[in-house]
Amino acid sequence: MSASGARRSWLTGLIGHGIGPSLTPELHEREAERQGLRYVYKVIDLPSGPVGAGRLEQLLASAVELGFDGLNVTHPVKQSMVPLVQELSPAVAAIGALNTVLIRDGHTVGHNTDVSGFRRAFADGLPEADRDRVVLLGAGGAGTAVAHALADLDVRRLLVVDPDRRRAEALGDSLRDRTVEVELVPASDEHVAAALASSDGLVNASPMGMAAHPGPPVRATLLRPGLWVADIVYRPLDTALLSAARHLGCTVLSGAGMAVHQAADAFELITGLSADRRAMLHDFDDLAAAETSAETTQPPARDTTEGRKD
Amino acid sequence: MSASGARRSWLTGLIGHGIGPSLTPELHEREAERQGLRYVYKVIDLPSGPVGAGRLEQLLASAVELGFDGLNVTHPVKQSMVPLVQELSPAVAAIGALNTVLIRDGHTVGHNTDVSGFRRAFADGLPEADRDRVVLLGAGGAGTAVAHALADLDVRRLLVVDPDRRRAEALGDSLRDRTVEVELVPASDEHVAAALASSDGLVNASPMGMAAHPGPPVRATLLRPGLWVADIVYRPLDTALLSAARHLGCTVLSGAGMAVHQAADAFELITGLSADRRAMLHDFDDLAAAETSAETTQPPARDTTEGRKD
Repeated sequence: MSASGARRSWLTGLIGHGIGPSLTPELHEREAERQGLRYVYKVIDLPSGPVGAGRLEQLLASAVELGFDGLNVTHPVKQSMVPLVQELSPAVAAIGALNTVLIRDGHTVGHNTDVSGFRRAFADGLPEADRDRVVLLGAGGAGTAVAHALADLDVRRLLVVDPDRRRAEALGDSLRDRTVEVELVPASDEHVAAALASSDGLVNASPMGMAAHPGPPVRATLLRPGLWVADIVYRPLDTALLSAARHLGCTVLSGAGMAVHQAADAFELITGLSADRRAMLHDFDDLAAAETSAETTQPPARDTTEGRKD
Repeated sequence: MSASGARRSWLTGLIGHGIGPSLTPELHEREAERQGLRYVYKVIDLPSGPVGAGRLEQLLASAVELGFDGLNVTHPVKQSMVPLVQELSPAVAAIGALNTVLIRDGHTVGHNTDVSGFRRAFADGLPEADRDRVVLLGAGGAGTAVAHALADLDVRRLLVVDPDRRRAEALGDSLRDRTVEVELVPASDEHVAAALASSDGLVNASPMGMAAHPGPPVRATLLRPGLWVADIVYRPLDTALLSAARHLGCTVLSGAGMAVHQAADAFELITGLSADRRAMLHDFDDLAAAETSAETTQPPARDTTEGRKD
């Protein structure tokens, strides 16, 4: 039957906490629809609280058994999923975090499309940007993914700011085999000001700017014309940081690109087909606009990890 | 997000042994496609061997957790699934077998669309058939579903033939609260001949006639013009029984109707939408034809439980 009359279908999903409002399922399903695929992307929102390794292993085994072709994973299981898959991409091996699991005939491979997604977003959105010295705010999971993407993009020196010194050091360690030089910058106005004064650009990979963490991650007075500024927060799209930077005439890159390209990369890994990234960016704008207009009539309060790729 | 820009999707599947060649997934997905739904139907083919209650319970829990909206189940778990669901339709409660589990917000309800599917197929395909006395061949799971459908269709007396007397008695017991009278007929040519001589119609719900069990379930010489003959075997569609009956001028009903209507009923339960049954019948013909033409070039050998609804 399958050989003669049946077409294949695709099943994937997202596992994490507070993922109900994620735009990723709709980005995948709209792209699949455009390509005429039978494709479903399920939101598997775990109850809050710790997710033990045994529990996560069982979830992955269930997904394999019930025919999932892949999974996205997000907070809080990006690290804990790594030892549970059978094979790792080089980026996942270096970072110790994944956001995509491919499943083929019971075999599981971990990938990180946050890295490839930011890389693609940067290459598309800031193709001419100088990248000799770049300041990175935030050394958590998202910051680490961004740092590896910046290393791929041939940034020479990365100045990492995080109040948690151990996290910043761990990020530096993960880059020890790369040509990028890493400098840890204390999280004080004075040190950040000095770092920015000598840098080409700034990437915010901290949660500052999200609805739950309003305000810019650095004082607006530390920005200057000529600096390029990228933010991975995409909810809201126009963060206080980007707004201040634009006001100064800086070239800016919003979180939309990374959000779309991580989804497009996962879609391509899962299906083996090319995603229409331009159309997906258009879908993202459409969805973000619908969301913004819905928020004017609905209570905005929600405590979610979605709103930036971490 | 969901409220503003996202559309819902549907996920279902089939659990059983030897279900790779089932036409049901394609019937569901084509109907969903026609309606513009995001809908995936997965084949969860269990390794052969017994399926323990613990294993089945875990499969169902996984399906609930990973966002399935429903499941079809077939041999060998139609009975063992019954105690694992939280609520039963009246048909399931009477028969002790289900083929569909609806899942809504973690709540599971068992249905049997083999019963409703045969009922609809019969009402559509043999609307004028006399049904005072009907001979039923086979008192297994499929025979029991058919018997309940025939009871719903106001058959007055059901003459049940099965070499396994205990199965035939159990079928009779399951109908004890219904108005239909059940008579157990010994599985000998002589007794079957007498039963057919006084009956309006014959339904084959035994596996005889499937590729793995070739030949008619009763000797062709026992048929007579004026008898209507229904077969639930659908692989092949034109069984030896139907062919002999048609040759005599009998009105016949193939297994296509039950195969399609059980799928349409499950589709409607799962989605809450109306299925286009005429289009699904057309799809079935299309798929069966593709299968037949593929079989002329491929080795036909396969030992499968699919090929009739049991």
